[in-house]
Amino acid sequence: MDALPRHPFDPSDDDKLREECGVFGVIGVSDAANFIALGLHALQHRGQEAGGIVTHDPEHGFSSARRFGLVRDSFTSASIMDTLPGEIGIGHVRYSTAGSKGATQIRDVQPFFGEFAMGGAAIAHNGNIVNADALRRELIERGSIFQSSSDSECIIHLMARSLQRTIPERMKDALRRVEGAFSIVAMTRTKLIGVRDPLGVRPLVLGRLGDGYALSSETCALDIIGADYLREIEPGEMVVITGDKVESFKPFERQSPRFCIFEHVYFSRPDSIIGTKSVYETREAIGRELAKEAPVDADLVCPVPDSGTPAAIGYSLESGIPYAMGIIRNQYMGRTFIEPTEQIRNMGVRLKLNVNRALIRGKRVILVDDSVVRGTTSRKIKEMILDAGAAEVHFRIASPPTAWPCFYGVDTPEREKLLAATMSEDEMRVHLGVASLRFISLDGLYRAVGVAGGRDARQPAYCDACFSGDYPVKPTDQMARGFKLADAVEPAE
Amino acid sequence: MDALPRHPFDPSDDDKLREECGVFGVIGVSDAANFIALGLHALQHRGQEAGGIVTHDPEHGFSSARRFGLVRDSFTSASIMDTLPGEIGIGHVRYSTAGSKGATQIRDVQPFFGEFAMGGAAIAHNGNIVNADALRRELIERGSIFQSSSDSECIIHLMARSLQRTIPERMKDALRRVEGAFSIVAMTRTKLIGVRDPLGVRPLVLGRLGDGYALSSETCALDIIGADYLREIEPGEMVVITGDKVESFKPFERQSPRFCIFEHVYFSRPDSIIGTKSVYETREAIGRELAKEAPVDADLVCPVPDSGTPAAIGYSLESGIPYAMGIIRNQYMGRTFIEPTEQIRNMGVRLKLNVNRALIRGKRVILVDDSVVRGTTSRKIKEMILDAGAAEVHFRIASPPTAWPCFYGVDTPEREKLLAATMSEDEMRVHLGVASLRFISLDGLYRAVGVAGGRDARQPAYCDACFSGDYPVKPTDQMARGFKLADAVEPAE
Amino acid sequence: MDALPRHPFDPSDDDKLREECGVFGVIGVSDAANFIALGLHALQHRGQEAGGIVTHDPEHGFSSARRFGLVRDSFTSASIMDTLPGEIGIGHVRYSTAGSKGATQIRDVQPFFGEFAMGGAAIAHNGNIVNADALRRELIERGSIFQSSSDSECIIHLMARSLQRTIPERMKDALRRVEGAFSIVAMTRTKLIGVRDPLGVRPLVLGRLGDGYALSSETCALDIIGADYLREIEPGEMVVITGDKVESFKPFERQSPRFCIFEHVYFSRPDSIIGTKSVYETREAIGRELAKEAPVDADLVCPVPDSGTPAAIGYSLESGIPYAMGIIRNQYMGRTFIEPTEQIRNMGVRLKLNVNRALIRGKRVILVDDSVVRGTTSRKIKEMILDAGAAEVHFRIASPPTAWPCFYGVDTPEREKLLAATMSEDEMRVHLGVASLRFISLDGLYRAVGVAGGRDARQPAYCDACFSGDYPVKPTDQMARGFKLADAVEPAE
Amino acid sequence: MDALPRHPFDPSDDDKLREECGVFGVIGVSDAANFIALGLHALQHRGQEAGGIVTHDPEHGFSSARRFGLVRDSFTSASIMDTLPGEIGIGHVRYSTAGSKGATQIRDVQPFFGEFAMGGAAIAHNGNIVNADALRRELIERGSIFQSSSDSECIIHLMARSLQRTIPERMKDALRRVEGAFSIVAMTRTKLIGVRDPLGVRPLVLGRLGDGYALSSETCALDIIGADYLREIEPGEMVVITGDKVESFKPFERQSPRFCIFEHVYFSRPDSIIGTKSVYETREAIGRELAKEAPVDADLVCPVPDSGTPAAIGYSLESGIPYAMGIIRNQYMGRTFIEPTEQIRNMGVRLKLNVNRALIRGKRVILVDDSVVRGTTSRKIKEMILDAGAAEVHFRIASPPTAWPCFYGVDTPEREKLLAATMSEDEMRVHLGVASLRFISLDGLYRAVGVAGGRDARQPAYCDACFSGDYPVKPTDQMARGFKLADAVEPAE
Repeated sequence: MDALPRHPFDPSDDDKLREECGVFGVIGVSDAANFIALGLHALQHRGQEAGGIVTHDPEHGFSSARRFGLVRDSFTSASIMDTLPGEIGIGHVRYSTAGSKGATQIRDVQPFFGEFAMGGAAIAHNGNIVNADALRRELIERGSIFQSSSDSECIIHLMARSLQRTIPERMKDALRRVEGAFSIVAMTRTKLIGVRDPLGVRPLVLGRLGDGYALSSETCALDIIGADYLREIEPGEMVVITGDKVESFKPFERQSPRFCIFEHVYFSRPDSIIGTKSVYETREAIGRELAKEAPVDADLVCPVPDSGTPAAIGYSLESGIPYAMGIIRNQYMGRTFIEPTEQIRNMGVRLKLNVNRALIRGKRVILVDDSVVRGTTSRKIKEMILDAGAAEVHFRIASPPTAWPCFYGVDTPEREKLLAATMSEDEMRVHLGVASLRFISLDGLYRAVGVAGGRDARQPAYCDACFSGDYPVKPTDQMARGFKLADAVEPAE
Repeated sequence: MDALPRHPFDPSDDDKLREECGVFGVIGVSDAANFIALGLHALQHRGQEAGGIVTHDPEHGFSSARRFGLVRDSFTSASIMDTLPGEIGIGHVRYSTAGSKGATQIRDVQPFFGEFAMGGAAIAHNGNIVNADALRRELIERGSIFQSSSDSECIIHLMARSLQRTIPERMKDALRRVEGAFSIVAMTRTKLIGVRDPLGVRPLVLGRLGDGYALSSETCALDIIGADYLREIEPGEMVVITGDKVESFKPFERQSPRFCIFEHVYFSRPDSIIGTKSVYETREAIGRELAKEAPVDADLVCPVPDSGTPAAIGYSLESGIPYAMGIIRNQYMGRTFIEPTEQIRNMGVRLKLNVNRALIRGKRVILVDDSVVRGTTSRKIKEMILDAGAAEVHFRIASPPTAWPCFYGVDTPEREKLLAATMSEDEMRVHLGVASLRFISLDGLYRAVGVAGGRDARQPAYCDACFSGDYPVKPTDQMARGFKLADAVEPAE
Repeated sequence: MDALPRHPFDPSDDDKLREECGVFGVIGVSDAANFIALGLHALQHRGQEAGGIVTHDPEHGFSSARRFGLVRDSFTSASIMDTLPGEIGIGHVRYSTAGSKGATQIRDVQPFFGEFAMGGAAIAHNGNIVNADALRRELIERGSIFQSSSDSECIIHLMARSLQRTIPERMKDALRRVEGAFSIVAMTRTKLIGVRDPLGVRPLVLGRLGDGYALSSETCALDIIGADYLREIEPGEMVVITGDKVESFKPFERQSPRFCIFEHVYFSRPDSIIGTKSVYETREAIGRELAKEAPVDADLVCPVPDSGTPAAIGYSLESGIPYAMGIIRNQYMGRTFIEPTEQIRNMGVRLKLNVNRALIRGKRVILVDDSVVRGTTSRKIKEMILDAGAAEVHFRIASPPTAWPCFYGVDTPEREKLLAATMSEDEMRVHLGVASLRFISLDGLYRAVGVAGGRDARQPAYCDACFSGDYPVKPTDQMARGFKLADAVEPAE
Repeated sequence: MDALPRHPFDPSDDDKLREECGVFGVIGVSDAANFIALGLHALQHRGQEAGGIVTHDPEHGFSSARRFGLVRDSFTSASIMDTLPGEIGIGHVRYSTAGSKGATQIRDVQPFFGEFAMGGAAIAHNGNIVNADALRRELIERGSIFQSSSDSECIIHLMARSLQRTIPERMKDALRRVEGAFSIVAMTRTKLIGVRDPLGVRPLVLGRLGDGYALSSETCALDIIGADYLREIEPGEMVVITGDKVESFKPFERQSPRFCIFEHVYFSRPDSIIGTKSVYETREAIGRELAKEAPVDADLVCPVPDSGTPAAIGYSLESGIPYAMGIIRNQYMGRTFIEPTEQIRNMGVRLKLNVNRALIRGKRVILVDDSVVRGTTSRKIKEMILDAGAAEVHFRIASPPTAWPCFYGVDTPEREKLLAATMSEDEMRVHLGVASLRFISLDGLYRAVGVAGGRDARQPAYCDACFSGDYPVKPTDQMARGFKLADAVEPAE
């Protein structure tokens, strides 16, 4: 026989939207870098390609280390951590943007650092600046030298040119020129700064850590270092933490918040708290809602591991159909999208999932997944399950059809590659070759996340552009490159 | 505050028995090494410290590569795989033995290779030779030079001194001198050989791969390469595969089989098939049996992830108490015991688990774990759960108390470190500080794995020495070092 | 006995002035990066700490690789060289500056790259900008963000802010603001540019390579790639090479040239040509002159290897005293100053030189060295030679006493650490403990390099500030940090 | 133009005979491993491919580290050296044998270690066993398992099978079965052992180091650690050093010594002492003898660096023709034959030498080299020199024509590849294309090394088989592979 078998015995898991970044910062603790490394490790699901830490102490000034790969591989050795002294610092994990032409270079890895006349500052950014192309052109014409291909570097250059006298004021100045989604942690020699954009698209929370403070994309990173969760940074808020003083500012024009609803569906870790509930509970509730909206007679409810697990448990609890692990994930892989090269990705795919053949044989199986993006994975999993002798396969999806790309810090395929952009739900069912296929409705999703009345089309409580095409901030750069908004959903702005 | 917090916000997960090895071999396929690497990747849970592959082809003779670390890190690059040409080969993954004085050296990594007068042979071994000390002394006195500290190397030296004319015959000769547990894959230039000891303590299965064959510790490694599972190698059987001919021999005196019952409980992967059922189904059945034996009124059934998950599902299904993921495992860690140094292990532990605080608060929680070895993890998990605000914690353990060390290829602490060796079930409950603690009975475990009548003390169907102290092969070397058998359970031999 | 012996059996070789950089560029050849790597390898003596290459081709744009360590270790593997496509490119090797506070970071490694409105440019710089501090402050105040601690980066930022429309014009603009010594190679997408400062302190030569051109710090790097040496770039000249057109400009006010005389003594490779003679011949002539100025009766003339070798040969030829290798250099070391850490340097020192004991015993030995900086090495070598049983040691030094630091691209100790800054020649002789010590006179050195009449104090033909304290460009930044010029030799400017 | 130029602007330096090993051992000093690393560094010219160190201390038993690459790269970090505790130890550097089929594996790197019934022993071997094939076959038939492809491993297996009761006695037993050349350092837990074969083909010297002792291939390695040179180990002598007692044995039948004359010509370092003179002086004397035997009118005497340098100095001193460095060696390369792969070797060659063009132009040049093996280098150097404009090139070779391979621990090409095996001196001159070519006579060489009467053909004082074909030990294995002795020079034995 020839080399490796050709039939698709292993599904691609590469069919996800990907959060691009996690940010973390601490102030007022000795060995700040150790806390940051732990925090970034807890946020690793938000970006596995690279990470960076900047700290400051009076003796050594600013210190910085940026590395490719996982936090556990880069930021655990004494040889690196000892180069990061100080009681204040910030960190960043990132996933590589599909849009960049070549491979990420280490100079693209955040935090970014800038030396200003009044001292240095470092910033780390989760989100996406939708007018970055225009800003970059303008800054280069004025004589700025960019060191990276990252949109986030604009912020540092805008700050460098601000006429304000303090770094927090320069940051306000800069961010007023920036359009898009941003949750930022930044630092000076003595201040830890957190900011969320006016819509609050991406998360950012504040925690108490001994006598100091921590800022984090999610609460799970507070748990890992034993910090107490205090509150969310509010949409449009800037906090400036000095010593143990937390000052709050509202530098932007007030807008109605639009938190990313997909953080509930997939991005955030299940043990993080958003609002008052754990993300796990919300996902279980989505599964229950899905069971109500789209019941079906079957023998087993199986998750597509691991992201479909909480919704599958919810579906099982609501429907009474037994929950079972019909697909086993090899725990020696990470999420498939760790590696940005096609070759390794293909390798990863082949090695990741296996069907529990003895369990599945002859059964009618409900497969619960969190989303369908291009549909490639769903199709392969279906074949894998049928190949193992399942009698029927019913897909239940814990989010509405993903029909629009995200421009706010999430890596999505171009619109034409999204299955739901070109097919109706029934066409998708035929395409995937399953006995039935049902997505939760957008109203159902809103109910599950706690909006009892469902979605209010005039003033939606969340950013749901990936489902609705309703973009709360006009994607300027993308439109300049030819992206067309839906007719009906011209953004509010 | 000082550096990292001291309270145990993260539990140790280092409290497991550890399988020491997985073996894999193929014949009759091009690029054998690629299949072996995939197979070893699927067997990675049986040994994460190091791996090795030997292949043979007529042009290059025997080729070998041995590396520390995971298969995904070592045996995926072309620079290594291209050095392993051939259509026949064997591989091995290993965990470091606690007993060895220092760090494992690369020369301890299998497969071992020997050049005999009639040609070369390589062998890979899962199990443990209980009279290795005596054999080694005898061989050194006769002039053998050992290159490793591994007990398995004795087999190659015994083969080198056999008076037989063929390698399979020399192997029979050698294995008749060996006492203990062994599942072996071996190879000559043209033959793939598989052997299990007369009791069949460790698993070994045969698969069909295109026109060739594969031997594997578990069926999950057949699935990953698309091979069809044919049958188990029988206890006491040697198969010699040449071209597409499979010859079967029974070179040992026949004994009543004693397969390791802990393979069902913990070692094997849930998607592997043992007998006619998946290991997952067996573990779910153990959970159901446990729910019958030890019911309790509570709000949630939570697994200690990931090994307690199937039993927790079974307990929930039997009891009707909802199943929930109360503890979240950071997926960017492997099993804690990946790293053999104390320092890294401590680091690992701190980073691995988090409680789903919002979910757990105020609830009465049943925690299902597969086993309690030293009790260190259980205690920390309990504190973590109570710290998060649980109302009550009830432990349910999917195996009987582990009171005796294993000498058949599993790494266990010394007897005095096993919690169950020094405490009664009630003392353990007090020690762990939980509302209730129950282990499944040994009879219950036998029932769950399919022995309807429970354990037959005169002729147990499994090796359960770690629970019963009934050692089917006398641990010669250990007894010479002072290990005492239980009075009542003098081994059968 | 205790560990390693304490007596100084091996001398320090760390007592040299160090050239900080070599530059190289090619245009009009396929695989430009390979030629650059070869050229940099030939210039390795000018900087061993790190190297970088930038290339451009229309398909991939600008490509860049920067690495610590030797060229032979970094820029020989296909994995790096394949990332540097193009028919145009520049490169740089550097030695770390003693002045920088911490370790060099990779971002300090040249070439530097800047994206301007009209396209990108990269530059590599040999020399030192004496008003860099002031320029940097000014640029930061205007909003430039520096990515390195290198003085050379100022040039790119000055270019970014120039009002000129082309890159060559912007470079002229920028360099007119820069004071100090600079030999620069730079590139745009289609142009290779070379510039020397008005005094021509550092070397730069032009060669013909097939249908293309090469720019190099020295001619030895033209030899290695088979290029023909055409001519020196003149002091104050800028050449802009496009396709096969070489345009010459003189953008600076004309000044009388002051080439670094120490390039003859030590920095340049002996097989490089400066003017019409090889550096080797000049050094031999220095040795002959020294023999005339400072003869002594002795049995052997021995060089301090390797830098003292040509002068020792000249001394032997002039004096008729036999030349011999009394000190053997372990060829498995590089120049000691490869490694910038103190620890490794000490290690290196101990391993580098050995006396040819059987040869030296009972002999009167003339030791010829190129220079004495701090005197540490000279002292140790003397002890080593006497320890081996030499009857007498006479030091002859092929340069005048080094009494002043260099601020034009050479790493020198602070003035107070220079032996000749604090001692007369006779005090030095006593300090070093030798039978006699003589330096060549400054006039003698001028004669040996071809200025028949010796040094003209009103208009010296060379920069000899390290010997005379006569600085042709005022060291602005250093004077701001407290450096005092000699009263008598206020610089010309 | 296409990629790199094709004309041979850089000569191959790969045309040398290569010593295969250096050995070193110490006893009675704390941190023995540090001394061994220094000693091996000083012996690096005897083997650059790999090195190994074994030490012993009562607490840790035997410790071992073996690494590819240079000593300076492998045995300088604390992470390795700290694993080698003890006051006794031995070390080895090796060059890869051309004869081995594939690449050297780490298991081929010495010292070899064996555990015997009475304790462990390690040995390191410089030389070659000419009956290794036969011994290996015999040992395998008796059941020995070889771990390497090295001939030296036979010694350990012979020792393992000896009936003697102590390790020194077992070593005598083993070495009496061994034919060929060997200088060995070995160790037990408490004894340092040195042995030379009865002919004393390879060197081995004894030194005093504080209260302890050192054994070394050459005296230069005693110098580096500050040890005093006591004496050579005599041909056929075994010394056993315990504490501060040195016992001497003569276990072999007495024979007339035959030290390798090529150690004088090329292998040994110039600062080592053989007999009463430094190797440098002997080489200078060879140059003088050569000037007497083969004078020629010319302008310059230039060495082929670095190995031709002392003879060129001698030639210049005798002839009165000025010595000059016409060819410059890039000091950032080692000897070309460091790297065993063809690809790297070719790279190395291109980068290594440059002609001092300005110096050579128009001159009649005498080039002095130590030997001509295949003639490939000589030819390229001649072209390089003529290309640079030399008027005439005269080759003078400091050894007789190399017409026979060495089988005693030196890597030589097959006989048919040796230029002198197929051409007369005049044919070689034509082949090399030089104005004149002269080798020193064998008698002249004997005179230069101190045998006033020249070579006594009936009882030569040296092994000169590579020149004469007179092999003092019959090369058994090679003859079995088809090697033919010269008719006239059937070996004495």
